[in-house]
Amino acid sequence: MKLSFNTWCYSSFPAWLPAYPIDYVVTHLAKIGYEGVELGCASPVAYPPYMSAEDRRKARRLLEENSIEVSSVLPAPGGGCGNNVASPIAEERRTAVRNYKDCVDLAADLGGKICLYVAGWVIYGVDQDQAWEWSKECLLEIAAHAKKRSVVMAIEPTPSDSNLIETPDDALKLMRETRLDNVKVMFDTIHALYRKDIAADYVDKMGPDLAHIHVSDLDRMPPGTYTDFTFLVDALKANGYDGYLAMEIGLSGRGVDPNVFAKKALQYMRSIL
Amino acid sequence: MKLSFNTWCYSSFPAWLPAYPIDYVVTHLAKIGYEGVELGCASPVAYPPYMSAEDRRKARRLLEENSIEVSSVLPAPGGGCGNNVASPIAEERRTAVRNYKDCVDLAADLGGKICLYVAGWVIYGVDQDQAWEWSKECLLEIAAHAKKRSVVMAIEPTPSDSNLIETPDDALKLMRETRLDNVKVMFDTIHALYRKDIAADYVDKMGPDLAHIHVSDLDRMPPGTYTDFTFLVDALKANGYDGYLAMEIGLSGRGVDPNVFAKKALQYMRSIL
Amino acid sequence: MKLSFNTWCYSSFPAWLPAYPIDYVVTHLAKIGYEGVELGCASPVAYPPYMSAEDRRKARRLLEENSIEVSSVLPAPGGGCGNNVASPIAEERRTAVRNYKDCVDLAADLGGKICLYVAGWVIYGVDQDQAWEWSKECLLEIAAHAKKRSVVMAIEPTPSDSNLIETPDDALKLMRETRLDNVKVMFDTIHALYRKDIAADYVDKMGPDLAHIHVSDLDRMPPGTYTDFTFLVDALKANGYDGYLAMEIGLSGRGVDPNVFAKKALQYMRSIL
Amino acid sequence: MKLSFNTWCYSSFPAWLPAYPIDYVVTHLAKIGYEGVELGCASPVAYPPYMSAEDRRKARRLLEENSIEVSSVLPAPGGGCGNNVASPIAEERRTAVRNYKDCVDLAADLGGKICLYVAGWVIYGVDQDQAWEWSKECLLEIAAHAKKRSVVMAIEPTPSDSNLIETPDDALKLMRETRLDNVKVMFDTIHALYRKDIAADYVDKMGPDLAHIHVSDLDRMPPGTYTDFTFLVDALKANGYDGYLAMEIGLSGRGVDPNVFAKKALQYMRSIL
Repeated sequence: MKLSFNTWCYSSFPAWLPAYPIDYVVTHLAKIGYEGVELGCASPVAYPPYMSAEDRRKARRLLEENSIEVSSVLPAPGGGCGNNVASPIAEERRTAVRNYKDCVDLAADLGGKICLYVAGWVIYGVDQDQAWEWSKECLLEIAAHAKKRSVVMAIEPTPSDSNLIETPDDALKLMRETRLDNVKVMFDTIHALYRKDIAADYVDKMGPDLAHIHVSDLDRMPPGTYTDFTFLVDALKANGYDGYLAMEIGLSGRGVDPNVFAKKALQYMRSIL
Repeated sequence: MKLSFNTWCYSSFPAWLPAYPIDYVVTHLAKIGYEGVELGCASPVAYPPYMSAEDRRKARRLLEENSIEVSSVLPAPGGGCGNNVASPIAEERRTAVRNYKDCVDLAADLGGKICLYVAGWVIYGVDQDQAWEWSKECLLEIAAHAKKRSVVMAIEPTPSDSNLIETPDDALKLMRETRLDNVKVMFDTIHALYRKDIAADYVDKMGPDLAHIHVSDLDRMPPGTYTDFTFLVDALKANGYDGYLAMEIGLSGRGVDPNVFAKKALQYMRSIL
Repeated sequence: MKLSFNTWCYSSFPAWLPAYPIDYVVTHLAKIGYEGVELGCASPVAYPPYMSAEDRRKARRLLEENSIEVSSVLPAPGGGCGNNVASPIAEERRTAVRNYKDCVDLAADLGGKICLYVAGWVIYGVDQDQAWEWSKECLLEIAAHAKKRSVVMAIEPTPSDSNLIETPDDALKLMRETRLDNVKVMFDTIHALYRKDIAADYVDKMGPDLAHIHVSDLDRMPPGTYTDFTFLVDALKANGYDGYLAMEIGLSGRGVDPNVFAKKALQYMRSIL
Repeated sequence: MKLSFNTWCYSSFPAWLPAYPIDYVVTHLAKIGYEGVELGCASPVAYPPYMSAEDRRKARRLLEENSIEVSSVLPAPGGGCGNNVASPIAEERRTAVRNYKDCVDLAADLGGKICLYVAGWVIYGVDQDQAWEWSKECLLEIAAHAKKRSVVMAIEPTPSDSNLIETPDDALKLMRETRLDNVKVMFDTIHALYRKDIAADYVDKMGPDLAHIHVSDLDRMPPGTYTDFTFLVDALKANGYDGYLAMEIGLSGRGVDPNVFAKKALQYMRSIL
């Protein structure tokens, strides 16, 4: 198992500040000791439409020089454009698909192998089955593109924020319906905690289809702040999991020092791995 | 003075849920008793690229039938694309300008006269004076476009979220540097509270250049929850202000019922006007 | 890098009690292990108009005997006379300038090389640009005097208390406008925390113009109480900083034991330096 | 009984901001409904050395035009100069006496009849009896001057901040020792609350020597926030008290809106008088 750190708290999403360019982020995370970086695809760190071929070559060199790799990528949900793949607005779904493809391409260009899939949410007036179908259609199109770039799509249940894919079973069901071998599942411990579920149980449920994990304590604090994650680690070992544990933390607003969060999370995780 | 309600908490920004289409929002705000609606330009309520000419005609009819007008519009800052007009990334500034122009056009198409201007923020490695210049350049281009559509740009100090335009004096200075008569200033009471400043004093400072106001109590709660706004109203009367008071509240996350917030705010504001 | 301790919490400002004479303060700080003492120029520790030439000779001897030096000085802002260098009351600005010159002289008489500059605040009815000009005029006069005594003036951003010099960029801008080589900048970590900024980033921004640092955790608690300062220390090392880290803590009122605060701060700082 | 409001929270002491000139303060307090204003002698409201004869004539006219009178005055304790009348530093006692005489003169020039006396505090190394003697000497000199200007000195026990005059009995003792008929006593409810004493009992104890009262709830909040002051009012009526009740509140720092505090306090006090 390897440790990665998600870059939202270094970017202008969801809090505008503090915000850093990708060079700062990569060099600092490598120095702190991470083996991977999870690119939250938001400016100024890594918004695909702003990154030219030359920018990507430089970023790839930067990663190599610092011996750190892209563990995974994911787009920023919300914002003006919504990015809701289950939206009744067809143009929004098209925009979301385009954004996902851009993220897949960025991952591939930088050597990344996994793109997370937030399956959208049901807005007022929409039938849940219809929302599910729209989300699935989007996923099929995105995954077909991802396949060409050798990227795996990992569906994430997000019950604290949404209302469509809430459980490991929901994620597995959507995965199976796609019948695609580059669609897998993942989970974030904060969503398990939100549902008062046991994160370790998700590992058993997802088994060999578990492609990625987000680790976060309550309130997006570093793991170990409130919660004991040793049973999660035990379950992962028993399951033979050899992917990344990506810290997706520090999203509570301006005032979070990303380096401090990264360091605290690393120290705790190393102490229990 | 007229009362308006901002639509962020009805949209998928910043929280994804609950989320409503524009028909729902307009009819409910009108029924609650608002004279104006402030369009936060986010899906599914009102993201300009998703709204066709036909959509806009329908929206305009809807507003007329419900006797409610568009008091103002503003784009969603942050998200993947950042929308930071003071970003060192030229493509981000271009994107932000395009988004602002889209919002101006939406305002004009629906009969609105004011577009708010969030002047961006200084990211790591950027000089504050340089950020100011970039923001001013963007504003000049947007305001020139707004001029053609008879829309006023109102610069908003946003100290709780950013680090460039923090005070009424900053906003007035940027306004004066543009030398354009359709650039004015506005303020949000929550930012005055954040700075521990007195909102009523902002009215005296901004005087005839005050084009709009956001009213919010601490934590984006309805006005009157914690704070007494009577001195603000007194200062506005003394200043001869006849614009809108727009409630920009309920942004603290999923769980906020937009209709309940809208009703509480209206009741309090009417009791002190 | 050397460690110093600010004497406010040993003086009658801002809390009247506990209060100690200078002999007590110097001997105790030396014994605790500090290499420097930062004189907050308030009675009964060190109010310049109360200190005769003989008092100063004795104080100098005392410092030498205890192998501790004056790292820096600063006047007490507020009080009846205000000491606001940006006040619209001309007599107040004259008083403030006189107080600053007294502090500079005290520094020089005791072997100190740095005087901090709190650049004042904008009261109701004053234009921010005018306040800035008044503050600059005062600084020019004070700095000319300081030059003769070989004292450097270090401008401090104080956003939690004031509204004129709030950011490192503000301080650098004021510094540059003076065009004087004995005007530099400094910062206090508590003000960076107040702004939810990252203190380490201030080091990069201020670079070679950084002349001094105040270290304080939130609520003026000893560093390490809530916040991890290791990244600040890393940034200072990378910047080649060789000045003082002065603990300006324990200002929250009567009940603070200055010696206990001094000892805790020293232990933490030594553990990360 | 008449209601007055203390101006600290409109001045730069103890918090620097917000701060207002005297014209603003007088007109706003009169409009809110106060019959008196208690001048905390701090800039920019009313620092005597900054107020010329012409300034005083204008202030007197302002008071008359707004039908509000100066109920009382008091100097700012602390600050660089300490103003401790029990200080072992002779120059500090001389400075404090001069400040008190300045305040007495300001009171007289503006038609005020009462100056409060904070009797100082015992610093490290000083004997309490010696401190008492120094304070008494100062008081005798100040009171002799006040006599000529027809001003009464009112001694205030200040146990929450100091350690010399802590109880009504202490204040009465010091009063009696002066054998001067223009030396009286007063108390502040917050100090009674601090000692967990009953404010109403202080009225009985001080009887005809009670010349003034400060009303404040805990944490310097408006009366009525936490505490029921009806028994205090009953005791005052029974005692035939016909002086001022001065609200000395809102000292907890920047962020207090003085007008809101003034209004809340007035509404509560009127409801129980």
